[in-house]
Amino acid sequence: MPELRKDPVIGRWVIIATERRKRPHDFQVTGEGCMTDTSSCPFCEGNEGKTPPEIIAYRNGTPPNSPGWSLRVVPNKFPALAIEGGLGRVGEGMFDKMNGVGAHEVIIETPRHVCNYDVLPEQEIEGIVSAYRDRVIDLKGDDRFQYILIFKNKGRDAGASLEHTHSQLIALPIVPKRVSEELSGAREYFGFKERCVFCDIIRQETQDGTRLVAESEHFILISPYAPKSPFETWILPREHQSSFETIKDEQIPDLARLLHLVMRKMVDVLGDPPFNYMIHSAPLHTDPEHYHWHIEIMPKLTHHAGFEWGSGFYINPTPPEDAAEALRNCDTVCQP
Amino acid sequence: MPELRKDPVIGRWVIIATERRKRPHDFQVTGEGCMTDTSSCPFCEGNEGKTPPEIIAYRNGTPPNSPGWSLRVVPNKFPALAIEGGLGRVGEGMFDKMNGVGAHEVIIETPRHVCNYDVLPEQEIEGIVSAYRDRVIDLKGDDRFQYILIFKNKGRDAGASLEHTHSQLIALPIVPKRVSEELSGAREYFGFKERCVFCDIIRQETQDGTRLVAESEHFILISPYAPKSPFETWILPREHQSSFETIKDEQIPDLARLLHLVMRKMVDVLGDPPFNYMIHSAPLHTDPEHYHWHIEIMPKLTHHAGFEWGSGFYINPTPPEDAAEALRNCDTVCQP
Repeated sequence: MPELRKDPVIGRWVIIATERRKRPHDFQVTGEGCMTDTSSCPFCEGNEGKTPPEIIAYRNGTPPNSPGWSLRVVPNKFPALAIEGGLGRVGEGMFDKMNGVGAHEVIIETPRHVCNYDVLPEQEIEGIVSAYRDRVIDLKGDDRFQYILIFKNKGRDAGASLEHTHSQLIALPIVPKRVSEELSGAREYFGFKERCVFCDIIRQETQDGTRLVAESEHFILISPYAPKSPFETWILPREHQSSFETIKDEQIPDLARLLHLVMRKMVDVLGDPPFNYMIHSAPLHTDPEHYHWHIEIMPKLTHHAGFEWGSGFYINPTPPEDAAEALRNCDTVCQP
Repeated sequence: MPELRKDPVIGRWVIIATERRKRPHDFQVTGEGCMTDTSSCPFCEGNEGKTPPEIIAYRNGTPPNSPGWSLRVVPNKFPALAIEGGLGRVGEGMFDKMNGVGAHEVIIETPRHVCNYDVLPEQEIEGIVSAYRDRVIDLKGDDRFQYILIFKNKGRDAGASLEHTHSQLIALPIVPKRVSEELSGAREYFGFKERCVFCDIIRQETQDGTRLVAESEHFILISPYAPKSPFETWILPREHQSSFETIKDEQIPDLARLLHLVMRKMVDVLGDPPFNYMIHSAPLHTDPEHYHWHIEIMPKLTHHAGFEWGSGFYINPTPPEDAAEALRNCDTVCQP
């Protein structure tokens, strides 16, 4: 019989549709592959002139916007938001609008034309995590911004328009709806239990083990209880921490290792699926005791359709216990 | 400069990304076409044995599950929810679940192998609308159900697994999150203004005209002020009505005409895009003065990606005024 499961944070119900049950091999996709002629790729070393001037780069003493870097952060060439200007909140009859002020940056994760960072050395992934932190800390100084979202789109079906591995950052003048919902769900739980809901999830998943994929000193990797889509996984810091940018130096290599691990596990179990990941963190300049930052990783294996659009309710054909088992048990190349 | 616009019902902000502005021809897609060998299509006349036994059908005196029908409703062969059983709400440690009880039906819209109903005669579309109403009225009698969602997925990218034109219905034991959000946004507006927010939208859009695509005696067709995706359109009944199933006989031909019109306009302006539509209606057995049923039609032209997943905030490259103008002005085949 199918099950309805409730997300303990946001209160959203999900249908675990056992009649439509899908196992990992039902999803096996073949990666799009990387193009071999990379002369036109704006993210490759040597093509620095094809991007707007860099904001920061990790370099060995080479001058800005030239070769000789391991990571670059540049403004998005086609930004969704404009960095200049004020908010200008106004009405339009009964409607409300404001200027689309914000930052939209691209983190180019490696100078080599690589399509996913499962093949990068762990040290480069540490650099990516550090760059995320450095950019948030810098942008926090701009008091027009209330929220910063860091995310990664991999593969065309997950919304990536360039294949060279990269992440993005958008700084927003408002707290987006999805974040407010998480915050208010978590606040309600805290009000009732006087405990952080994410800390409770970590305790239960660690003890129970059926949805646990991997653990490390500072983080756990799980399939959440009520996943929106098959093989969704979350990485959570064990210790209560509301905001990603307060990550400590000693946590960074550990997080990089777990991110690397989940990437390799997805390639092993699912082929080379398109995916998105997003860092969920508290709004800037807040440190709520009820909120706990984490990363949600969502391989794109099914199409969300009219039912999901109309109801905000997801049909998931793979129970998270099956997904966790497959990811946990995949062969040795996946061991941390 | 990009604009942030707020959905007046749900409170969600949307980025109208003018830097990434896209015009209709940027989206032109080529329909997937219909297969010519339809012998294996379970929805074609003559193949009635390939579906579960029909629930209702519009027939000219022919026996059930045989040829000679204009529309059939059958249970989904791979239902997301099971029709038998009780709710059985239980906890699982800190988590909550219940049995996936519900109805999952398929409305087969025509006996002929047609891939979209833009080519059907209007009378058949009236039959589709009547079937939606008849099924809701029948399922309302089952007191396990709190909500019924009617939706259509057209094209593989919009989640359809069969191309023969059809809609679906899911009856749910709970009110889904997206609906609760709309209801509570609309209640808040009503609390402040003592007017239905949708009635106000209808008044403003009819007067203003920039987002109005078409009008008829009982309905209007608009591009909403803060659309989640390019060329999203809504059909709203002019008269305040909270629930779809209370639609009057005289409204049905008028709604069928407008649905037909928007289908043909989408084909003319965008090619033959995959799309979803959903009927948004009040929960069963309620008649809130602050809620107003409507249909949301969403062509699938962009990929929602990490940003949308992480923020619940949409980046839309086509201002709704541009979309409405293109849909309004497309050539005569589109006139009602």
